[in-house]
Amino acid sequence: MPTLVLLRHGESTWNRENLFTGWVDVDLSEKGLKEATRGGELLQEAGVLPDVVHTSLLTRAIRTAWLALDAAGRTWVPVRRSWRLNERHYGGLQGLNKAETLAKFGDEQFLLWRRSYDTPPPPIEPSQPSGVDERYADLAPDVIPLTECLRDVVVRMLPYWYDSIVPDLRSGATVLVTAHGNSLRALVKHLDGISDTDIANLNIPTGIPLRYELDDDLKVLDSGYLDPAAAETAAAAVAAQGKKK
Amino acid sequence: MPTLVLLRHGESTWNRENLFTGWVDVDLSEKGLKEATRGGELLQEAGVLPDVVHTSLLTRAIRTAWLALDAAGRTWVPVRRSWRLNERHYGGLQGLNKAETLAKFGDEQFLLWRRSYDTPPPPIEPSQPSGVDERYADLAPDVIPLTECLRDVVVRMLPYWYDSIVPDLRSGATVLVTAHGNSLRALVKHLDGISDTDIANLNIPTGIPLRYELDDDLKVLDSGYLDPAAAETAAAAVAAQGKKK
Repeated sequence: MPTLVLLRHGESTWNRENLFTGWVDVDLSEKGLKEATRGGELLQEAGVLPDVVHTSLLTRAIRTAWLALDAAGRTWVPVRRSWRLNERHYGGLQGLNKAETLAKFGDEQFLLWRRSYDTPPPPIEPSQPSGVDERYADLAPDVIPLTECLRDVVVRMLPYWYDSIVPDLRSGATVLVTAHGNSLRALVKHLDGISDTDIANLNIPTGIPLRYELDDDLKVLDSGYLDPAAAETAAAAVAAQGKKK
Repeated sequence: MPTLVLLRHGESTWNRENLFTGWVDVDLSEKGLKEATRGGELLQEAGVLPDVVHTSLLTRAIRTAWLALDAAGRTWVPVRRSWRLNERHYGGLQGLNKAETLAKFGDEQFLLWRRSYDTPPPPIEPSQPSGVDERYADLAPDVIPLTECLRDVVVRMLPYWYDSIVPDLRSGATVLVTAHGNSLRALVKHLDGISDTDIANLNIPTGIPLRYELDDDLKVLDSGYLDPAAAETAAAAVAAQGKKK
């Protein structure tokens, strides 16, 4: 039976400072490094041992995979990466403080940008070709997002799900996906059939593996966090981020 | 023009203790961790930035790739792994002290096992199916070596060279291979057309990137270590390992 495990990267330096991050390639904080290792220990304790790992192209997810696989004794598994697993592009909000943004624009606008399904933040300016981050150099300019709502993330993430992750699951492998708050929300929305409205209330905690047991048609038989109590506490903290200074 | 960079993993805990290691999955020593990071710094200083990395299935090579890519700012490049890049299987010598083995068997037998092209050490017993390391579980039992001479390494390494590394080079990429003393000696033998006799005298130092500039037919135009002085000192130390206690 295929097993899928989703792991949101541990706290980044910008999570710690309560900034919108998106595609900015910030690294894990000290706390984030520990969370990633703890995530791997939870995998090993539960006997959920990845046969393959998929990551985004952002260092905080890649390092989370390194640390978690190391702690789980699975350094050697095959690795695949894609920009399609990247965090939501936060457009013009990237680099801004969440609390200041809330204070400046008000509750309604803030929640719309942060959790509505189809309202993207204002876009950034397109990069000059010479300024494109080399990891995206193979993408056509009109494919590189300048801002994204969650719907945009679902649309760009699903091709990777179908073309790269599903074949691994169909082979019977235990598949680990280390990615981001919103790329994983997009995937959970798809897996659990969550409505465009209800997805606003779903928060995924950092560093706690979320396991899905799937049937041969990849329908969800069962799912749950490997440390449910910690997951509940952590998800509440994510939901409250706007209020933090 | 394609660029190939070979990087031998930094010192392992068993290198430090002067033991034959082979396929035993020991980790890097503190010194080895530093060597791997220094290898990545040399890549960055020389502007030799990998577009893709190939590693063996052994942790010391995988961790060397992690640390070197991290230091070079290339965490996100695609990764491919194969048992065909593993260290030479040292058969019954694995776990034995090199100096003790030299004392017990004498100079001639020691050098034959260590550096002759076609004399493998005595084989180990085959594992029971249940005892096969999971990372090799997909390999037919008769493909998993029980001992190897350098010729055996050349024979099992070359298919990976042709099928996986060459296509990356032909695409024009800068390709990093992080592997082992003997799997890299096998590759250098092939690239530089070194004879079965002369290869005995080739020693590859740990942690210093060895760059090859290739033409479109993958003939060597130029090659050299990124830190030639350090490479010379280190290669002499590798050659003297039998004498160390």
